[in-house]
Amino acid sequence: MNTPETHPPVDLRGTTATVTARVEAAMRHDLTTALAGCDPLLGEIVHYALFNGGKRIRPLLTVLCSRCCGRDDAELYQLAAAFEYLHVATLVHDDVIDRAEQRRGTPTVVARHGLTAAILAGDWLHAHSMHLIGKLAGGRGLEIFCQATASMVNGEFAQLRLIGDITGTEQQYFEVIRQKTGNLIRSTCSIGALFAGADEARRTALATYGDRIGAAFQVVDDLLDFLGSAHRTGKTIGNDFIEGKLTLPLLHALERADDQDRHTLNQLLTGDRTRTEAYRQLVDLIGRYAGFDSAAQTARQLVAEAIQALAPFHASGQEGENVALLKQLAEYILARTK
Amino acid sequence: MNTPETHPPVDLRGTTATVTARVEAAMRHDLTTALAGCDPLLGEIVHYALFNGGKRIRPLLTVLCSRCCGRDDAELYQLAAAFEYLHVATLVHDDVIDRAEQRRGTPTVVARHGLTAAILAGDWLHAHSMHLIGKLAGGRGLEIFCQATASMVNGEFAQLRLIGDITGTEQQYFEVIRQKTGNLIRSTCSIGALFAGADEARRTALATYGDRIGAAFQVVDDLLDFLGSAHRTGKTIGNDFIEGKLTLPLLHALERADDQDRHTLNQLLTGDRTRTEAYRQLVDLIGRYAGFDSAAQTARQLVAEAIQALAPFHASGQEGENVALLKQLAEYILARTK
Repeated sequence: MNTPETHPPVDLRGTTATVTARVEAAMRHDLTTALAGCDPLLGEIVHYALFNGGKRIRPLLTVLCSRCCGRDDAELYQLAAAFEYLHVATLVHDDVIDRAEQRRGTPTVVARHGLTAAILAGDWLHAHSMHLIGKLAGGRGLEIFCQATASMVNGEFAQLRLIGDITGTEQQYFEVIRQKTGNLIRSTCSIGALFAGADEARRTALATYGDRIGAAFQVVDDLLDFLGSAHRTGKTIGNDFIEGKLTLPLLHALERADDQDRHTLNQLLTGDRTRTEAYRQLVDLIGRYAGFDSAAQTARQLVAEAIQALAPFHASGQEGENVALLKQLAEYILARTK
Repeated sequence: MNTPETHPPVDLRGTTATVTARVEAAMRHDLTTALAGCDPLLGEIVHYALFNGGKRIRPLLTVLCSRCCGRDDAELYQLAAAFEYLHVATLVHDDVIDRAEQRRGTPTVVARHGLTAAILAGDWLHAHSMHLIGKLAGGRGLEIFCQATASMVNGEFAQLRLIGDITGTEQQYFEVIRQKTGNLIRSTCSIGALFAGADEARRTALATYGDRIGAAFQVVDDLLDFLGSAHRTGKTIGNDFIEGKLTLPLLHALERADDQDRHTLNQLLTGDRTRTEAYRQLVDLIGRYAGFDSAAQTARQLVAEAIQALAPFHASGQEGENVALLKQLAEYILARTK
């Protein structure tokens, strides 16, 4: 049934499982060397932090983007592992900052091993990820990667600044999420393309794809924080509200609200944010101004732009198969429920 | 009076001041670009952490080692700055770990801006230093640098393991200090040489020099913690004792003590280490077994080895001047009083 112009329906779930298994094997192999002669406790913590059922989205993106551009070899999975190392390094430090007790249902590194070990293990993962990127993706790859990590830190600062500030704009919101998570996802894609020796046009196409899915992912996260709190997780108040974060549904409502409702929203955001009643009122007001629907519409638009960015790639053969997987991955973001 | 074969007596203090000024100018210039578009608070913290009167020993080593090998241009001072960035990144994280309130008589970043800002600013400096090293010293330079940073973290873990453990050996002690501080000083020297395009023999010579002065520096630090506590700082108990660290004077005493004194030392180390009387007894016992003198002898030996390592370099001309400065710097470690 197959002709060279088409390919069988791609299987995102199956591909994800295969790629994840290869990336995890590359990680274990790499860690055996990298941790040789290191203190056993450091090794234990690094393994504990890395192998806790993470979805490995970033390595999957690196692998698919490199494959789209024609390279698929053993080194690719080492490169992909480096992105997971960095991601986990930031999670370990985030948990220190948030004093988080649990992640994915198990104790966080900071809860299990204390502040010192968590900061140091995060630093080790950070250094090791850069080492691998420099080795495998060269100076240009390292430059993109370091800009993304610096941007991530900057995004955290910018977000702290926007806490509870209802004069924040949609533009500032997108700037923060691009800095915080978007640029790293973008770099994951563009370094994958660079690694495969892709030309400028393809590197830019995949960088744009990464930028749009990174933003879409965050918008969906905002929505899930509202919806998840009510329907799924049993929590009665969304975390983002408690933390005073400006999320897209809220920003959309703030933009459209009349003076009185805007005043009410302001009071809710600057008042006691742990009251269930305050949260219920906030959700009502956002709903009244179609904040949830329009945020969902924004996410759909971003995913459409991500898919549009893939136009320079062939729709057939091996390349086409990986492009089709990237499209499915983008669409999956919209269907995400947790 | 000058002939090409000799050079005037070198002026370490004057050179240090000139190099420090150039490195600090390079830092300010680089930060203007690197922090452009970043959150103002991040910029403020980075400047606060970097410009607080640090001695700039690491940048000085990079500059002198590169000059010994014939390269001295504007990029060298940027490269040197990267080592200071990393050093300060680790100080900022160390102060989080130690919950330190003061550094050089001013509030630490964590005391002034809180845990979140301190962890993030440290991460930013870490990422930025690697970016610069990768850019200026290439893949091989980055590899050496990343190994040194990974080793630093590993040394911290190894040190935690040795706390209060009187079965620790001198070999373990040197392994820990090499990991914690020595390897980074070693990398500062060898990357300086690499940057200047030095051959293998010279790179190895300068790496050995860095290794020995790094170790000597730490041994002198141990001694100053004992002597400083009594004579200078007005503190009555050394920090290392309070923290249960195995220092070289103590290790020398443990090695030579008879069974009864060894038992006493063990009791002092595992008992309440905040008692002035316990500390006084410890100092007496170390003195009885000449622990301070033999640690000082070890430091002198390490400095002699550092100077010996410089043999492959010419003693005359521009090269000789910088070699002479490296020798003075090594000797200065022995004369250090704070």
